[in-house]
Amino acid sequence: MKQKRYFLADNELPTQWYNIQADMKNKPQPMLSPKTKKPITVDELSQLISREAASQELNFSDAWIDIPEPVLEMYRYYRSTPLVRAYGLEEALGTPAHIYFKNESVSPVGSHKLNSALPQAYYCKKEGATNITTETGAGQWGCALSYASKVFGLECAVYQVKISYNQKPYRRSVMQVFGAQVTPSPSMSTRAGKDILTLYPNHQGSLGTAISEAVELALTTPNCKYALGSVMSHVSLHQTIIGLEAEKQMEKAGEYPDIVIGCFGGGSNFSGISFPFMRHNILDGKKTRFIAAEPESCPKLTRGKFCYDYGDESAYTPLMPMFSLGHNFRPANIHAGGLRYHGAGVVVSQLYKDGLMEAADVSQLQSFEAGLLFSKAEGIIPAPESCHAIAVAVEEAKRCKETGESKVILFNLSGHGLVDMAAYDQYLSGSLTNYTVSPEEIEKNVGNL
Amino acid sequence: MKQKRYFLADNELPTQWYNIQADMKNKPQPMLSPKTKKPITVDELSQLISREAASQELNFSDAWIDIPEPVLEMYRYYRSTPLVRAYGLEEALGTPAHIYFKNESVSPVGSHKLNSALPQAYYCKKEGATNITTETGAGQWGCALSYASKVFGLECAVYQVKISYNQKPYRRSVMQVFGAQVTPSPSMSTRAGKDILTLYPNHQGSLGTAISEAVELALTTPNCKYALGSVMSHVSLHQTIIGLEAEKQMEKAGEYPDIVIGCFGGGSNFSGISFPFMRHNILDGKKTRFIAAEPESCPKLTRGKFCYDYGDESAYTPLMPMFSLGHNFRPANIHAGGLRYHGAGVVVSQLYKDGLMEAADVSQLQSFEAGLLFSKAEGIIPAPESCHAIAVAVEEAKRCKETGESKVILFNLSGHGLVDMAAYDQYLSGSLTNYTVSPEEIEKNVGNL
Repeated sequence: MKQKRYFLADNELPTQWYNIQADMKNKPQPMLSPKTKKPITVDELSQLISREAASQELNFSDAWIDIPEPVLEMYRYYRSTPLVRAYGLEEALGTPAHIYFKNESVSPVGSHKLNSALPQAYYCKKEGATNITTETGAGQWGCALSYASKVFGLECAVYQVKISYNQKPYRRSVMQVFGAQVTPSPSMSTRAGKDILTLYPNHQGSLGTAISEAVELALTTPNCKYALGSVMSHVSLHQTIIGLEAEKQMEKAGEYPDIVIGCFGGGSNFSGISFPFMRHNILDGKKTRFIAAEPESCPKLTRGKFCYDYGDESAYTPLMPMFSLGHNFRPANIHAGGLRYHGAGVVVSQLYKDGLMEAADVSQLQSFEAGLLFSKAEGIIPAPESCHAIAVAVEEAKRCKETGESKVILFNLSGHGLVDMAAYDQYLSGSLTNYTVSPEEIEKNVGNL
Repeated sequence: MKQKRYFLADNELPTQWYNIQADMKNKPQPMLSPKTKKPITVDELSQLISREAASQELNFSDAWIDIPEPVLEMYRYYRSTPLVRAYGLEEALGTPAHIYFKNESVSPVGSHKLNSALPQAYYCKKEGATNITTETGAGQWGCALSYASKVFGLECAVYQVKISYNQKPYRRSVMQVFGAQVTPSPSMSTRAGKDILTLYPNHQGSLGTAISEAVELALTTPNCKYALGSVMSHVSLHQTIIGLEAEKQMEKAGEYPDIVIGCFGGGSNFSGISFPFMRHNILDGKKTRFIAAEPESCPKLTRGKFCYDYGDESAYTPLMPMFSLGHNFRPANIHAGGLRYHGAGVVVSQLYKDGLMEAADVSQLQSFEAGLLFSKAEGIIPAPESCHAIAVAVEEAKRCKETGESKVILFNLSGHGLVDMAAYDQYLSGSLTNYTVSPEEIEKNVGNL
């Protein structure tokens, strides 16, 4: 009997997150305060986000951080998520590779984002906040934070990138069902939004812009904290629950991955599936490959510059040492809204610089081609973001077919695409296109960073 | 530690379906051939559907039917589905009741429908069919059969009720991603469709009409079989996998349900969750209550007539002894498209007549009110159909609050509503309305049956 899915019992669920910063030989360079340009402190950072999240962000010594019991209790509603052996995909490809995916799409809100939304909302509430605000692209993060806010009794305001607000109206509805207030960004409700709309009246929004608006709202509203869905180290920390579970589940399957793949926007789901395995590369001499799958139209790792840059368009956030396309880079309107971000997280950037991981870029058409193949083979329609990870997994599996190797490939299915069917429609009708970025455009944005 | 979810290990999964027809004291009256008006035979029925499904339909002696290994193998991709203790909902209601739900929404296509699509497609393929055709309302069944056809290598053609085709374009896209051909019904591609459009040029479609079209296509196309997503006994049989799992999972939770609830269109998900428990009422003297939750606008059980009626608008199907609103009844355009069917399955109709189960009707607004409450409490957005089951569960839980009883309530969450957000939008904006049916309208349709 071929076993297809692996779960963990409640008492096998991880009770700690893994903090790779403690084990990194080269620590990331410090983030700098946007005001003083000096290394930022927990005190400064906690003006914006919860103190606990700020402490985690700057924790370089504790490899293991306890998951608070109220968060664990909520995790038990949907975790462990299944580790699935993709027999259907293997057969469709005729590959000797063993392909596994971690199915984060079965979380209540349809993606991995809830893993960090829950602790962030919990910490804010515990520290006395009444309101929480954030940005969202495709809406996965916004949905997750809206629900987590409801769980812990916070009011939630979300700035959604305008193009996604219009492309994916259902995600807005999901946030509203959970009681959140949703504003398309750039909006006239913040100074950052007004400034951008004055310069570019038809601005379709970007994560960088929406972050500016949310940060401004948090800094100018009493008892209001900001929460971010990716990029920052504490978000990656929370997402390690994915890889920690996968590690135990792979053990049940009697295998260990040769290649681990995640799609890449700011880094949260990639980090989540990768870091627990990467720790064995760092500490135990394992040789697993880690591949970040990013869109060709927003190639911060493969073609960006390592430099200090802001996380948002209006330069409100700390300066971060990261691979970036420039905080004024305006990504094309691809359907993978969650990957339309100019920079890579601080930790991932350092790991990439140190050669501990790789990156690959995927065109929009290639991503949907892979998504369609996966849908037919496995019956699950992947989010446009997740299609990028699948595309790289398919490439690696095809390579195994050529060489005859039975490599073990693990990728993260970060979310489902049921709210993104308009994108599949366009792909099926042949009206979807690729977007490339010229070297000149990249240089224009990163040249003076 | 409060356990929230209960799963079964692969070796605990049921390997047989439960056929309640064998245990019923009063067997259902025979279905009649539409041509001869005599009890239909397996030979006659298998001109339309697979022979194996036809045999199951008329099997009144075997209480247990083996699930074929290739179907079991596919079940293992998504089954067992979780049994969830709804602590969040209990808390929101302040009820002493213990509320559980079986979460069928985590199936690859988002609903319970795959449980019957897989065996039906498998049987058709095994018996030499190359094509399969069906109707679909909201699209849950169409998505499931499209995927199951892909799995077993059949071409699939789906007639989708026109109002749903327009209301829920994403479901059409899902079917197309799985390679199915989707036609809005009534269409000009069949005689049945043409006849209806000639009489009513703006006909928005109904399940009864779409069935006529699919049946006509199957009967006039070589190597093409028809598959139905509800109503018939073999569909209910396949869906008993839900209740059989739930029974074992409830045992793990150390409880047994006092009340079992399912929403009710033709009966498949209600039967699936109920029959395995009902067997203990029939055989072991248990006193569990079973409640079918139907929409106020399509009240076949609470206000229909028990009579012989056709399953489709054009009277192509066998005559079935059932509670019906008349096969020409045109249900209002409620968002719970899967419940817009005029009749109840043969087995359920007999059980209801014999007092082994109850029925309750739910208004559209009440259903969405319950759905919203559930979304906020549990983080899962239920399908409009499933909202009806939730509404009845909420009512029963509130009754427990009044009486102080800790009853154990189990309902089936038949699917998620992520592709139905337009309906939630309307509810939130206050533009959704109720639809009632006048006694005259019912009498007009069932009067001369």
